[in-house]
Amino acid sequence: MNTRLYNARILTMEQDRHIFNGEIWIKNDRIVYVGENKVIECFGAENQGMYIHWDKEVDCEGNLLMPGFKNAHTHSGMTAFRSYADDLPLKKWLTEKIFPMEEKLTGEDICYLVKLAVLEYLTSGITAIFDMYLMPEITAHACMDMGMRCVLTSGLNDFTSSVRAVAEEYEKWNHTSPLISYQLGFHAEYTCSKELLKQAASLANKLRAPVYAHMSETKAEVAECKKKYGMTPSVFLDSLGMFRYGGGGYHCVHMTESDMRIFVKRGMYVITNPASNLKLASGIAPIAEYRQKSIPVAIGTDGAASNNCLDMFREMFLVTGLAKLKNEDAACLDAADVLRMATVNGAAAMHLQDADVLAEGKLADIIMIDLKQPNMQPVHNIEKNIVYSGSKQNVKMTMIGGRILYMDGKFHVGEEPSAIYKETERIVNRLMG
Amino acid sequence: MNTRLYNARILTMEQDRHIFNGEIWIKNDRIVYVGENKVIECFGAENQGMYIHWDKEVDCEGNLLMPGFKNAHTHSGMTAFRSYADDLPLKKWLTEKIFPMEEKLTGEDICYLVKLAVLEYLTSGITAIFDMYLMPEITAHACMDMGMRCVLTSGLNDFTSSVRAVAEEYEKWNHTSPLISYQLGFHAEYTCSKELLKQAASLANKLRAPVYAHMSETKAEVAECKKKYGMTPSVFLDSLGMFRYGGGGYHCVHMTESDMRIFVKRGMYVITNPASNLKLASGIAPIAEYRQKSIPVAIGTDGAASNNCLDMFREMFLVTGLAKLKNEDAACLDAADVLRMATVNGAAAMHLQDADVLAEGKLADIIMIDLKQPNMQPVHNIEKNIVYSGSKQNVKMTMIGGRILYMDGKFHVGEEPSAIYKETERIVNRLMG
Repeated sequence: MNTRLYNARILTMEQDRHIFNGEIWIKNDRIVYVGENKVIECFGAENQGMYIHWDKEVDCEGNLLMPGFKNAHTHSGMTAFRSYADDLPLKKWLTEKIFPMEEKLTGEDICYLVKLAVLEYLTSGITAIFDMYLMPEITAHACMDMGMRCVLTSGLNDFTSSVRAVAEEYEKWNHTSPLISYQLGFHAEYTCSKELLKQAASLANKLRAPVYAHMSETKAEVAECKKKYGMTPSVFLDSLGMFRYGGGGYHCVHMTESDMRIFVKRGMYVITNPASNLKLASGIAPIAEYRQKSIPVAIGTDGAASNNCLDMFREMFLVTGLAKLKNEDAACLDAADVLRMATVNGAAAMHLQDADVLAEGKLADIIMIDLKQPNMQPVHNIEKNIVYSGSKQNVKMTMIGGRILYMDGKFHVGEEPSAIYKETERIVNRLMG
Repeated sequence: MNTRLYNARILTMEQDRHIFNGEIWIKNDRIVYVGENKVIECFGAENQGMYIHWDKEVDCEGNLLMPGFKNAHTHSGMTAFRSYADDLPLKKWLTEKIFPMEEKLTGEDICYLVKLAVLEYLTSGITAIFDMYLMPEITAHACMDMGMRCVLTSGLNDFTSSVRAVAEEYEKWNHTSPLISYQLGFHAEYTCSKELLKQAASLANKLRAPVYAHMSETKAEVAECKKKYGMTPSVFLDSLGMFRYGGGGYHCVHMTESDMRIFVKRGMYVITNPASNLKLASGIAPIAEYRQKSIPVAIGTDGAASNNCLDMFREMFLVTGLAKLKNEDAACLDAADVLRMATVNGAAAMHLQDADVLAEGKLADIIMIDLKQPNMQPVHNIEKNIVYSGSKQNVKMTMIGGRILYMDGKFHVGEEPSAIYKETERIVNRLMG
């Protein structure tokens, strides 16, 4: 499938490259040209000595093309629990409401629930997810079915999965599909025994791989870890040799100076989830401080049970708004930085450097932002408009690996949304019944 | 224009009435029937002894009808300044960036800028606005042209307007159009001399009318008022006899016990603007405390210069999320309360009790929420889905006074959005040139 996207404004997200008018050519799943508009008189073009025949040409009508958003922390299979157990603090919510329900989930259930999440990602311009959930192979198959790019990680803990299973998954899912990759992970310090964590660290060192986990999400988590081990979560985990090859922490709301020093030393990523942290009353992550210390920040939605929606526009506004509030400084974190977190930094955190910017040779994970909605007018500054005013309504197209999966409100994922909705309703009725 | 909206789920927002399946009949600008689906075999229906012929019948396909959102504080004419002066604290932003630009605005400019705002309100299901801006008569005409419901209030201060002008506007705009009404107001304590405020209070007492103004938005505002008058803003203003007939305060972020006692005693409304308060780093309003003290809360977007978008979905999520954060209690403010603030309480604060709920005799200010988007699935609890997951993308229809002004992404306002965008770009280029 070769596609030409022309008559566009283009924000490549490369360093110091401003928005320009032009077009993008896609050959199969890669970008082969990003540049000025070309006058083309036939149904194809010459590129690097080869003639490309267009299967599809899209007139972008002056709308914006940019890299898709990278949702760097989510639990896609949790869509079953949207609006099911709101208005509860994290621990009660997790242990009394979510865990008992999750025990009832089958692989078939998770497949449909992930597919529902994928539909929502596409409406929000999300072209890749970093997903931690039960039965990662099911998530992989659901994403492959629909054309979604997914980096899997394990939610390993004392009750589900094992280090051996994680090792097998790592091998399998880094060599199965160009849409799927796998990074080492475990759920959190507070759901894993020290013995299990040591095994995980040993695997990471054997594979020379980074490791990802929930870290310092709530005050209570940090206090209990200190009581148990005399150390904060990041310090304790690092003391086991967990992060010798880097990795990252999801949430990182309550971090000490020592925690941050580890992130700096190990080149680790903070993956912030502001809507979930608000809704569970966990707190505000010190994003401006991370920026000052050069700790890279990426952004995730977390799962639909705690957020409750899977929308990068909401997250981007919250990242900047909450930083301004926390620091009592309206100038402390600007829109351009946040847009970088949601795209380039997310790609780096997820080891998707091939999908970070729009440039020749990169994967064609591209979104079109509708600038002709009233919330994008007037156009002083497109980046600020996206971060401060943008919404799902502005996503005109979502393309992953050169395939247009969503355009003008219609999905092209090989399945009807209504069929997916029907199945998820059936699942929910069974779970709650 | 008589319209039948059938095959819908209906959330009337009446006390203790649950969501049901049914239909709504509209005769001219009023609702004449809300109830179960009726089998109708011809192109009309018998109602209260009269035959109604339908000009339009809309199959809602199971989607939700509910009262439109009431945006209880905005400055519509400020769309020119969206993404123009971000990332600055309130006072610097206002005095160095906004005020100098506003001096250059003509009436014709404001007309187009308001029209741009109205387009955005419609995309967010906002059916009425409480608008404070320069030249309120221009805003009135722009709203009447497009079919928007607008409650005007004055931004009276030492530099613009006068108490005499306010008195004239009050008389004129409460008797000109069914779409327009007018409430007394002034900008804020810190932009008005004591003498001007005394005159405003005197007018309020003469007209036996409530008064609205910005109040306790920032810590600095409160500190300066205490320094100047030895009292906090609400206490000082009340001491002038300003609120003998009630009214309300916009923002109310930094309120003392004494301030709150005045709000209780005078039956005043808090009108909260959380996105603007985040973006200008002003703080978090104590919404859960207002609820405990039975101070009614309504919600506004504030203007596009400080928010930067005009979206009630963002505001609703922030109201509940920030309350949870401030109180460190995920259970302190639930979705149903917030939905009430955005509809019924807003209508009460704006004296639009005729447009508060869906019931026979009420104004037909109705929106349709698309439940068939992935972010509304599965359907455990529609109210929570709207508040926690909703977005502009879910607004399928916006009807004001019986007229469908927005449906399936298309505007029916007598003007092309592209023409309005072109004019606002021209204005902005002149202002910034």
